[in-house]
Amino acid sequence: MSHDTLAFCCEVLLEPPSPSNKTADADRFREGLEKMGLTGVEIPLDIMRRLPAELRRNHFALEVAIGINRLPRLSDCQGLEGLGLTVLEIGKRDIFGLAIDIGSTNMECSLVDLQTGDKVARAGAENPQAKFGVDVLTRAQMSMTGEYDTLYLALLEGLNGLIGKVCDKHCIPADQIIAFTVAGNTIMSHFAVGLDVTNIPLTPYVPAVNAPLLCRASEIGLTGNRNALVYVFPNSGSYVGGDIISGILYSGLHREEEPALFIDVGTNVEITLGCRDWIMTGAGAAGPALEGGVAAIGKKAEKGTVTRVRFDGAGKKMDLEVMGDTEPRGVCGSGMIDLISGLFSANIIDRRGRLVDSAEGVTEKDGSKVFMLYKSDTRELYLTETEIQNFLLSKAAMFSFLYVFVRSVGLTFSDIRKVYISGALGCGIDPESAINIGMLPDIPRDRFIPIGNSSIGGAEMVLLDRKLLCEVKEIAARITYREMNEDGELMNVLQGAMFLPHTEPGILKGEK
Amino acid sequence: MSHDTLAFCCEVLLEPPSPSNKTADADRFREGLEKMGLTGVEIPLDIMRRLPAELRRNHFALEVAIGINRLPRLSDCQGLEGLGLTVLEIGKRDIFGLAIDIGSTNMECSLVDLQTGDKVARAGAENPQAKFGVDVLTRAQMSMTGEYDTLYLALLEGLNGLIGKVCDKHCIPADQIIAFTVAGNTIMSHFAVGLDVTNIPLTPYVPAVNAPLLCRASEIGLTGNRNALVYVFPNSGSYVGGDIISGILYSGLHREEEPALFIDVGTNVEITLGCRDWIMTGAGAAGPALEGGVAAIGKKAEKGTVTRVRFDGAGKKMDLEVMGDTEPRGVCGSGMIDLISGLFSANIIDRRGRLVDSAEGVTEKDGSKVFMLYKSDTRELYLTETEIQNFLLSKAAMFSFLYVFVRSVGLTFSDIRKVYISGALGCGIDPESAINIGMLPDIPRDRFIPIGNSSIGGAEMVLLDRKLLCEVKEIAARITYREMNEDGELMNVLQGAMFLPHTEPGILKGEK
Repeated sequence: MSHDTLAFCCEVLLEPPSPSNKTADADRFREGLEKMGLTGVEIPLDIMRRLPAELRRNHFALEVAIGINRLPRLSDCQGLEGLGLTVLEIGKRDIFGLAIDIGSTNMECSLVDLQTGDKVARAGAENPQAKFGVDVLTRAQMSMTGEYDTLYLALLEGLNGLIGKVCDKHCIPADQIIAFTVAGNTIMSHFAVGLDVTNIPLTPYVPAVNAPLLCRASEIGLTGNRNALVYVFPNSGSYVGGDIISGILYSGLHREEEPALFIDVGTNVEITLGCRDWIMTGAGAAGPALEGGVAAIGKKAEKGTVTRVRFDGAGKKMDLEVMGDTEPRGVCGSGMIDLISGLFSANIIDRRGRLVDSAEGVTEKDGSKVFMLYKSDTRELYLTETEIQNFLLSKAAMFSFLYVFVRSVGLTFSDIRKVYISGALGCGIDPESAINIGMLPDIPRDRFIPIGNSSIGGAEMVLLDRKLLCEVKEIAARITYREMNEDGELMNVLQGAMFLPHTEPGILKGEK
Repeated sequence: MSHDTLAFCCEVLLEPPSPSNKTADADRFREGLEKMGLTGVEIPLDIMRRLPAELRRNHFALEVAIGINRLPRLSDCQGLEGLGLTVLEIGKRDIFGLAIDIGSTNMECSLVDLQTGDKVARAGAENPQAKFGVDVLTRAQMSMTGEYDTLYLALLEGLNGLIGKVCDKHCIPADQIIAFTVAGNTIMSHFAVGLDVTNIPLTPYVPAVNAPLLCRASEIGLTGNRNALVYVFPNSGSYVGGDIISGILYSGLHREEEPALFIDVGTNVEITLGCRDWIMTGAGAAGPALEGGVAAIGKKAEKGTVTRVRFDGAGKKMDLEVMGDTEPRGVCGSGMIDLISGLFSANIIDRRGRLVDSAEGVTEKDGSKVFMLYKSDTRELYLTETEIQNFLLSKAAMFSFLYVFVRSVGLTFSDIRKVYISGALGCGIDPESAINIGMLPDIPRDRFIPIGNSSIGGAEMVLLDRKLLCEVKEIAARITYREMNEDGELMNVLQGAMFLPHTEPGILKGEK
């Protein structure tokens, strides 16, 4: 690996002290680094305290981990080489970076070997704050009534648990992690480093900080090397978080010549439209259906979850793809899209989302019509009409957001050359199913690019190339936020989008 | 006061957030600083955590204490304005700096109001390490056998006690101290920040660091504002400490056109000779006599100490100047110089330092001749011949060092235009007495400039003008060290210097 990573290793070979060379240890060490082209490297006090003994134990040939000691300003970005560096650790050891995505509901991390560039392990967990309130704004409001510390400590404990998990997976001690990159929405990023969130839910919705942060693991209580760097992605106001900025970086939208869409579906739907000249982001609540939060049948991706549903040509026979070798226990977002699409194609549900009385699989439960998805001696899995309506509301909201958003800059869907799909949908969505139900626009299929968890993808990229710190700043500076829920046109489009696929097919094709 | 101090205060006036100005708090604050010409000011995480509430509590008009966040490199010294700054504290408060001199035996500190530049209080205490070993090398050796922590913690506790004392004197809380400057010999500077000292007493005598250090009070456990800057003066090898470099700064020797001497008498005698083009420093053990360490009668400057002794014209009548309104209990260095000089002039002691049998005041005690300095119903204070010999050894060592040192660069005493006298001697020495006994050279009296504790003086200067950080670096880089004890000529001169004033008067006058 090169020295472009956020933190890197090298070996410093020094001449031992002698009567003719009495230079002090730290000064000698700094000179050695300078001879390697690493000028002005800061040596923190705790490292300087250990330096004399480590130098002698290693016969003046000392391995050292080095990282950046401050973030570039936009004006620095031409000459990043001039950025300050600092010693993070001394002595022989492997070094790792950890990319962390903190979602409102779920957290995920990716362990990266900073010497080989390999992504060696991943781990995920529920965000422990979720049990205090599904909505992040609720959590910010709780902070106003003195419950900040409870939420903050819950998240910190959760993050440290996650770090422990991923280190165990790869069998490394946590102090080999010498760099963290953290991406999350604005409120999660604030909680992660202990910043005040109480002004975010209050007009005019001002975060404590937008700029990216650089601090040390020991400052925020994160398990890892005590000197480990922690880079927190910037946000662009209260509504566009570091997760979106990291995702944009990962998608490459900010380098496109022609307008591209970046859709991130998590607890909210976040839509970004742009290219190398401009970037516009908006967000709206699409309901929990798309993340698998539909009552009773909904389930996030884990053992027993139906992630895909395939129908044979005539729509008579269903094939369920279930995680783990087990009975199906619920359906996640991608499975729901397939399911609704298949049921609609097979005429088991009609254009308004009602179950057709005589259709195969439609039966009655507790006095209501349901579709029986799976039945064994011990388990029944069925879909109610209410669940279908909830799902249609989410799909309608998502489509309407997309439509209004694209239109607001004078474009139509046919102008969009690439559609990056990230988040819960990005994991396994079949664009054909989504288009069939009118959730995504009916444009050439090869324009859809599922990119999985793009937030963690961008965080991994920054670990491996610190030059991207400038690119991140440029993305953040280029973003404009468009308030979506205040849009009058939205409600009109939403009405039509509640139907399968839509009341006006021309809208789906980008003809208007 | 200007903004040239190591840390300074200013008030940042901001426009409150509004729907048309949603800039995040920290970004808004940084922009406000930029409008005042303070660009790229770092905001530490702990300050950023408190910022949103403090901004609103103060209606977006926030007082802030700012300091440097890294030390200049020599190459930076042309354009110091470009140095990075950091926020140290927010909210209305007075701000103070504390200059600390850590001597092997005594410690002293000076509290400086950073807004007015006034030196508002001083405090002193014994260095708590002294009870473990008078000599600093002994203490470094103790560190090799596992007693480092004991010594380190003793010093830290002593320093914090001293800080408490000076804060009490001026009735301020310690967290109003937002900058420290620390000067001490190499080993004391190392102990102050917890650096390894074990290689200093071992050939080739290599310190952990020579460069100046900048850290935070909380990093080293110093009582003060947790973000307070701590600047530690550089040293120039194991034998020229930050106290000497600070003292040179204070004396101005490094700016002189013609060669000047800077004599610092503490536990050792340290001699610096130089001008704006070159600086040479040497040190030697002069015995404890000059710091008041002579057995029985010797005493450091405190209540009951005789600091000056005056004789009437004929040397018949003595007048003792005693600290505090009390009986004399002992004699300090400056008092001893006066006393020996007076006794010699009055022929009470002869050229070899022997008491003259028939002389007034000479009597017998425990079978030995003594000079009775003071006698009351409850107390006797007398000087033995052994004490006189110890003193003469110290004065001879000091004079010989001076002589050999000046000669080694091809100069004589008559070439020296200024003699700065610092340390224990600088407090109250009468050059006339010192010259009379052959301790200082017999050159025009107006060339002698007593400057007191120059180490603390230089530390105060840096608190008040951060541009001097470069000057300190330049002094440190310019110093060459001259090994004194290995000098063969020294022993020859020492022999003659054991006499009062010297066997060869021409040497005293700088004639050879």
